[in-house]
Amino acid sequence: MKELYEPVRGFRDYVPPESEVISWICSVFREVAESFGYREIKTPIVESFRLFAMKSGEEIRESMYVFKDKGGREVALRPELTPSVVRVYLRELRAWPKPVRLFYIGDVFRYDEPQLGRYRGFTQAGVEILGADDLNYDVELIEILEEFYDRIALKERIYKVNNVAIFRDLAIRSNLDESSVERLLHLLDKGLFNEAAELFEARGAVRGARIVREVARYRGANDVQPLVSILESEGVYSDFRMHIDSIVKYIDFAKSIGARVILDPAFARGIAYYTGIIFEVAAPPLSISIAGGGRYDNLTAVYGGEELPSTGFAVGVERTMLALSSQGQGPSLPRRRRVLLLLLVKDPPVFAEISSIARDIRRKGVVVQIEMLSAAHRLGRWLEYASKEGFNYAVIVGKRELERRVVLVRDMERWEQHEVSIDRLAEFLVG
Amino acid sequence: MKELYEPVRGFRDYVPPESEVISWICSVFREVAESFGYREIKTPIVESFRLFAMKSGEEIRESMYVFKDKGGREVALRPELTPSVVRVYLRELRAWPKPVRLFYIGDVFRYDEPQLGRYRGFTQAGVEILGADDLNYDVELIEILEEFYDRIALKERIYKVNNVAIFRDLAIRSNLDESSVERLLHLLDKGLFNEAAELFEARGAVRGARIVREVARYRGANDVQPLVSILESEGVYSDFRMHIDSIVKYIDFAKSIGARVILDPAFARGIAYYTGIIFEVAAPPLSISIAGGGRYDNLTAVYGGEELPSTGFAVGVERTMLALSSQGQGPSLPRRRRVLLLLLVKDPPVFAEISSIARDIRRKGVVVQIEMLSAAHRLGRWLEYASKEGFNYAVIVGKRELERRVVLVRDMERWEQHEVSIDRLAEFLVG
Repeated sequence: MKELYEPVRGFRDYVPPESEVISWICSVFREVAESFGYREIKTPIVESFRLFAMKSGEEIRESMYVFKDKGGREVALRPELTPSVVRVYLRELRAWPKPVRLFYIGDVFRYDEPQLGRYRGFTQAGVEILGADDLNYDVELIEILEEFYDRIALKERIYKVNNVAIFRDLAIRSNLDESSVERLLHLLDKGLFNEAAELFEARGAVRGARIVREVARYRGANDVQPLVSILESEGVYSDFRMHIDSIVKYIDFAKSIGARVILDPAFARGIAYYTGIIFEVAAPPLSISIAGGGRYDNLTAVYGGEELPSTGFAVGVERTMLALSSQGQGPSLPRRRRVLLLLLVKDPPVFAEISSIARDIRRKGVVVQIEMLSAAHRLGRWLEYASKEGFNYAVIVGKRELERRVVLVRDMERWEQHEVSIDRLAEFLVG
Repeated sequence: MKELYEPVRGFRDYVPPESEVISWICSVFREVAESFGYREIKTPIVESFRLFAMKSGEEIRESMYVFKDKGGREVALRPELTPSVVRVYLRELRAWPKPVRLFYIGDVFRYDEPQLGRYRGFTQAGVEILGADDLNYDVELIEILEEFYDRIALKERIYKVNNVAIFRDLAIRSNLDESSVERLLHLLDKGLFNEAAELFEARGAVRGARIVREVARYRGANDVQPLVSILESEGVYSDFRMHIDSIVKYIDFAKSIGARVILDPAFARGIAYYTGIIFEVAAPPLSISIAGGGRYDNLTAVYGGEELPSTGFAVGVERTMLALSSQGQGPSLPRRRRVLLLLLVKDPPVFAEISSIARDIRRKGVVVQIEMLSAAHRLGRWLEYASKEGFNYAVIVGKRELERRVVLVRDMERWEQHEVSIDRLAEFLVG
């Protein structure tokens, strides 16, 4: 029977305090996104497989939960939310004034090999800007993340950035077709630069191959100059100048608001729909990225809608929690005052009066846990419980005291006991 | 391509304001549960099929999403969370002092025929008390719900209650086996009283059959007397007296805190693990129940653990939203002040200063949406946008004004314009 207690391989249970940290991170994210003018949307976890397959190709099938529902529909557990957000935009939100700023918080699923910080089900919190026709919207994403990380007090966060338009353009100018472009981005993401260069060579694009091999040498360079030199020496700098100017400008803006940004000319992301500025967030010493995003200017058109320049990102919520603890940062969860109310009188009118007082106290933000005791001899056990569990006060409501309209309040920290009038109890505990 | 925009049959997208109402209901639920001393847990959406099949029998398979994952495991999308909570308790929380009070908020899935308020994916918010060895814990559930409904301002809520132990005991005394007991509860839940009586007749238990047929006549009676009379006339009242006393006492307590409780002696719930007090919440004029729960004293033992009396409930979040609107009650979502900040200067240092002011304003709870305008001639369009979208203020940051360290603030309600010093902007907008 024991194996029944385990979650399915690749999944995790979260109990307090971790479960509470996850909820707290989500609620901070919601507050921040709302404060920037974003509106929340909720889309189903179960989506048509085709929605994801269209732009991501066969490869994503490998790591997707795909099955047929009882009606024979080929459905998937969503591996991310961007395609769903675009779908809902096309279906319901086209009339909204642009840009449309949306955010979401939801579960996603990927059938990957489980390892540190990588589970088969996890929570993503993200934003999308549809109709983001300017670089400043990409900068806004960094602003949102900076505010989010400030509020959860994640000290170290580094943005690795690049402009994937450079690789895309290089591929198109070398006559690679769209599926080869997607393959190229996938290979670059995996750091397989040789294989990436061979894609060009296979089409006789020796210059493209040379550029890729050169760029690979400047992985993580944090400098645009080597890239400029490579393109100049190949005599194609002017073709790419616009893309380079835009990443430089983007970095200037991001740095102006204090973000630590590192340009990596060899950086790409595996998701096929990115077309421009992309980024990932690292939180050392954690070795995995905790957020990522980028610009996708063609996705609405891929789904048959109008072209709509867009940009967005997603935060891995559980990984963000991992980052906090790896930086030795206890999350600053709001600590509430806690009262254990021990009721020795089992009588509906008394219960009603005490319940009503408890309600007033709870509404002031204090936790009130009520235990109705069958026998006074169990009182000792419960006071011990109050002490062990970190309650601030134990309140004992006894029959004799109640006749005098008083209760006993034990201050668990100072180990003092007070007789408090029942009419002043709420005031005493909240004050 | 159009059909690609639709969610999968049986599922729904939620856009503002509905998506925001759902989140708000969840956050109120979380606050209330925490204020009663409950701790949150998070369990995976994908669980082993066996976890649900063990206690619920073959029938639930019909309405469950079941499939094999890539590792050949027979998994299910959870149709509810109670079995998962019990699983986590048995695995990780056995050492916690009893009672263990837990709550959850999560997605569940049922392959039912879609209809009003019934989708194939929806959100449940619920609590479980493990080690709930007294009736007062059942009463606490009603208290929590009452506080929750008060806070979301759902005016009409009616608790239909019964003690399913009466039917269980009747079945056992009539020599029905456990699978017949489960069948019985299912039939009663569907109102198929004749078929339920026939289950007894098939085992020659004519008295049991008579009692079931009699009870059926008092559906929704809101009176314990008919049931007492039936049992007395059959000469078995003393066998059931304990169960009847407990439902009467439960109702007394629930009424003492102001809950509208209706006893329905013919009421049962389809879930097989209930053993005692059960309830469902109706919110007229909505015809479907919006919450339900009950006592399950054997589930830990079914899963191979110690016996642990337990009780809990789950709220249907989307149905609760439906109930609010069916009662003509607009949810009282917190309304925030909103500022549209129009930046006419595209220059990193200016952007940095404005961003920092915006951050201070946001931290005071005001929404600040920034638009960086490429051209001043688009200003008119944006002011129109601010007006249409209900912003309270539009702030125009222009080059010439900035040289004098001022910005223009337009009050969108009074249609007034002020020149405000940049150093006093936050104060002006928050104040």
